[in-house]
Amino acid sequence: MLSASVDIRVRYKETDKMGVVYHANYFTWFEIARIELLDQLGFPYKQLERNDFFLPVLSCEASFHSPAFFDDRLQVQVEIKKVPTVRIFAEYTVRRNTDPIASGYTKHAFVSGEGRVLRPPPEFMESVRKKFEI
Amino acid sequence: MLSASVDIRVRYKETDKMGVVYHANYFTWFEIARIELLDQLGFPYKQLERNDFFLPVLSCEASFHSPAFFDDRLQVQVEIKKVPTVRIFAEYTVRRNTDPIASGYTKHAFVSGEGRVLRPPPEFMESVRKKFEI
Amino acid sequence: MLSASVDIRVRYKETDKMGVVYHANYFTWFEIARIELLDQLGFPYKQLERNDFFLPVLSCEASFHSPAFFDDRLQVQVEIKKVPTVRIFAEYTVRRNTDPIASGYTKHAFVSGEGRVLRPPPEFMESVRKKFEI
Amino acid sequence: MLSASVDIRVRYKETDKMGVVYHANYFTWFEIARIELLDQLGFPYKQLERNDFFLPVLSCEASFHSPAFFDDRLQVQVEIKKVPTVRIFAEYTVRRNTDPIASGYTKHAFVSGEGRVLRPPPEFMESVRKKFEI
Repeated sequence: MLSASVDIRVRYKETDKMGVVYHANYFTWFEIARIELLDQLGFPYKQLERNDFFLPVLSCEASFHSPAFFDDRLQVQVEIKKVPTVRIFAEYTVRRNTDPIASGYTKHAFVSGEGRVLRPPPEFMESVRKKFEI
Repeated sequence: MLSASVDIRVRYKETDKMGVVYHANYFTWFEIARIELLDQLGFPYKQLERNDFFLPVLSCEASFHSPAFFDDRLQVQVEIKKVPTVRIFAEYTVRRNTDPIASGYTKHAFVSGEGRVLRPPPEFMESVRKKFEI
Repeated sequence: MLSASVDIRVRYKETDKMGVVYHANYFTWFEIARIELLDQLGFPYKQLERNDFFLPVLSCEASFHSPAFFDDRLQVQVEIKKVPTVRIFAEYTVRRNTDPIASGYTKHAFVSGEGRVLRPPPEFMESVRKKFEI
Repeated sequence: MLSASVDIRVRYKETDKMGVVYHANYFTWFEIARIELLDQLGFPYKQLERNDFFLPVLSCEASFHSPAFFDDRLQVQVEIKKVPTVRIFAEYTVRRNTDPIASGYTKHAFVSGEGRVLRPPPEFMESVRKKFEI
């Protein structure tokens, strides 16, 4: 399994007039965790894009168990539980202290700059498989 | 069935460095369509909140079939296909011309300002049921 | 003088926990008015970018006289009062009904995709000058 | 003088199709630095709001010397150079490594939840004055 976790602090900008975080912003937090996971894997996303490998979101979901508030310190964890093939499926949990307050997923495929679906770079897959063997 | 549709024009702000609309922004478009549906039903969301009825998003999903670009003119359609009870389930389709480019859903419940789950206001339900009978 | 005006409706996403529109969002509204002005001038911004003319913001300012609220219907007016040379200076007024609630400016220069400062396209300047003569 | 600094990492969400950070997002970064300054002063903004002291932005400005890119690690510094009276004037510098890439300001006043302008809380002013004497 691949896994990574980031700490975030809720920005005022991320709240709405209900006094809580606007739901769409959780997907930006998911992104931050995903970027961290790619870093830890040795494939920073910026580098992937330079090599013409893009990872657009094909679909995404989030469920909100309890609201997040301005200035909350949260942990966003991402897990990839199955060795990716053409599709990458990433699952997320947002926690305050240790309580899960939201969860979700994003689905991705590697595509070229022109939008052609690509197999993941071989070195990427090698690195992924090593992590799964641990 | 309840249904409404809004026309939107893609803002530069909504794009990202991939040159397309950032995925999380579709949920804001879903919101615009939902607000329009409540207007047409005779229950503007602003009014609902004044009466201490809030409609937070409990969960949401979106699937992206084809990217949206800066300055695109899009139609966002929302449909509520089942008479809501405590839960409201809304489905969305985003179209360019008549081609669907994305779809998704949001799930809601009425809650009070303090977060207590509420039954929908009776007049609201009456208005909804009338629409379903048409 | 060049001038254009757009009607916007405040999105829930644009509010913050103070119950009003988050200040940074006004700059997105300024953008919408600016895009409209370029359309009316016959130089849609999308087209300019295709011809490798970009108009990044060099600086921007906004003053807030009175807050904007969710669901407000606002008018955003943009005015270019001096014939642009290398710099373009655009001024904005946001109104609710006819009351100005905010004002501001953005300063721009034409640059190429690689960031080189460019003179405005000649046809653009011709069209601008015609408007100023009216 | 009051001063604080935060490290931020540019989010993909913050970029636009020009491949750089959308200008309005700098104001959110300014906010993060401001929140940090209030923390260090012993008056976390969340606490101020609980005591019915709000600090809306009255006006704001930003100038962009050089673009910020996805995944950049930036420092955002805020400085309050004059003892605030009714108005608070905060100045910001955004740096990559030690190079300033953007600067700006925000102007604020303390207001109550109903929008009435207030003098700053006395303990707040005391804490501010102590810092200015250092």
